Amino acid sequence: MTSTAFSDLEIAHLLADAAREAILPHFRSSDLSAENKLSEGFDPVTIADRAAETAMRAVLSNHRPNDAIWGEEFGQKTGTSGRVWVLDPIDGTRGFISGTPTWGVLIALSDADGPFLGIVDQPYTGERFVGSPDVAEMTGPLGWSPLQTRATTDLAQAILFTTFPEVGTAEERACFERVSAQVKLTRYGMDCYAYALLAAGQVDLVIEAGLNAYDIQGPIAVIQAAGGIVTNWQGGPAHQGGQALAAANAQIHAAALELLKDA
Amino acid sequence: MTSTAFSDLEIAHLLADAAREAILPHFRSSDLSAENKLSEGFDPVTIADRAAETAMRAVLSNHRPNDAIWGEEFGQKTGTSGRVWVLDPIDGTRGFISGTPTWGVLIALSDADGPFLGIVDQPYTGERFVGSPDVAEMTGPLGWSPLQTRATTDLAQAILFTTFPEVGTAEERACFERVSAQVKLTRYGMDCYAYALLAAGQVDLVIEAGLNAYDIQGPIAVIQAAGGIVTNWQGGPAHQGGQALAAANAQIHAAALELLKDA
Repeated sequence: MTSTAFSDLEIAHLLADAAREAILPHFRSSDLSAENKLSEGFDPVTIADRAAETAMRAVLSNHRPNDAIWGEEFGQKTGTSGRVWVLDPIDGTRGFISGTPTWGVLIALSDADGPFLGIVDQPYTGERFVGSPDVAEMTGPLGWSPLQTRATTDLAQAILFTTFPEVGTAEERACFERVSAQVKLTRYGMDCYAYALLAAGQVDLVIEAGLNAYDIQGPIAVIQAAGGIVTNWQGGPAHQGGQALAAANAQIHAAALELLKDA
Repeated sequence: MTSTAFSDLEIAHLLADAAREAILPHFRSSDLSAENKLSEGFDPVTIADRAAETAMRAVLSNHRPNDAIWGEEFGQKTGTSGRVWVLDPIDGTRGFISGTPTWGVLIALSDADGPFLGIVDQPYTGERFVGSPDVAEMTGPLGWSPLQTRATTDLAQAILFTTFPEVGTAEERACFERVSAQVKLTRYGMDCYAYALLAAGQVDLVIEAGLNAYDIQGPIAVIQAAGGIVTNWQGGPAHQGGQALAAANAQIHAAALELLKDA
């Protein structure tokens, strides 16, 4: 049974709210300079990660007891509805421990076809990027705005992001660099925030490898709602993880895919 | 004559306030997808850059008419006081055009010995990092906090930032990579925000090359006020630009300098 008191979109917001509250006390806290010598034996990012996923699972236990859960910290809980909430409480832990506002809370609701509702939330900046079949919007320091991907069709005009220059294996890096050599600008270090920028119409391509399903399902739903496309490097579904090519539109996707697909 | 109605620190805040107001309407504006076809022939980041520096020069003209000005956009204005306001209205224009909150407004007040008061301001997140002989503090989404650099002394425990993997010349990149090979974590893409994170005790080292004076003078003043050290790669003054090694403390500075100084 699924509670009808809240819509799925409202539940997703409740999850993001719960994660924000659990994580923010640990971000840039002085604990972070304690070099992992906390009493429980965990570093602050792990404590925040677990606290946030615990808080999100409590919301789902109350409101969506029949849905499955797949979380980065506590694994899979089976369900009976055919739906699964895919949760990454802190995506970008290296950004988190460096104090950068580029990590995020990733939330997706998926069925057998993949994610259809997602949130990328940045608790420190107060930005929330939301995508569903009916909604593509963000809120943040400048208020509310719709999400709409860019219309860039030419790689020579494109802005490309990935998180670190190695990308993945040596072969994956070489494929990435074939795309990077064609674009106007390549930038690094944004973690999941890069996918949010793509949905917000600020960048054209995000290419990564070695992803887990919970790293990419939230971004997929947000980007698709905003008009973009996310596939693996062969053009197939990306929601199981591995390689991801996120693109602002079909044309720029095809241009990048042509350079990646030998990987 | 210098107005006594406002202290130098208050003037620096007025400059940062003026720059924020001038820049924010252009950040993530839909103009950015117009591919530089604006009527004046300038792209939005250039328009924002010039508007912000114009606004800051107006503040100085009113309140500090005898001080010199050195701005990124409009060059040098001579003065009679022996003091110079060094202004970079948008440091990190590539970050700006990509929508990342990693660019900043850089403000320094310098004398013959270099910068002694500085601000790194991030208008979108609302973060302001301030350093002077009497003040080391930040304000932002979580309120007010003091700035204090970290105590990390061992490179193996250090977090290192630079903006892009190429760093500078091939020789400069090789020197950077000698440090990178020793540290716990190397991250990219933060523009001037990396210096602010160092002042805030979140990272240990920032290493860059090819800087202009106005790229580094604001960060120098903020980092020094927070307990850190900024030099060039030979251990000399960095405020004229070129190579910069910013470090959380003397010990980690010496360890990194040893690996850089052959450049």
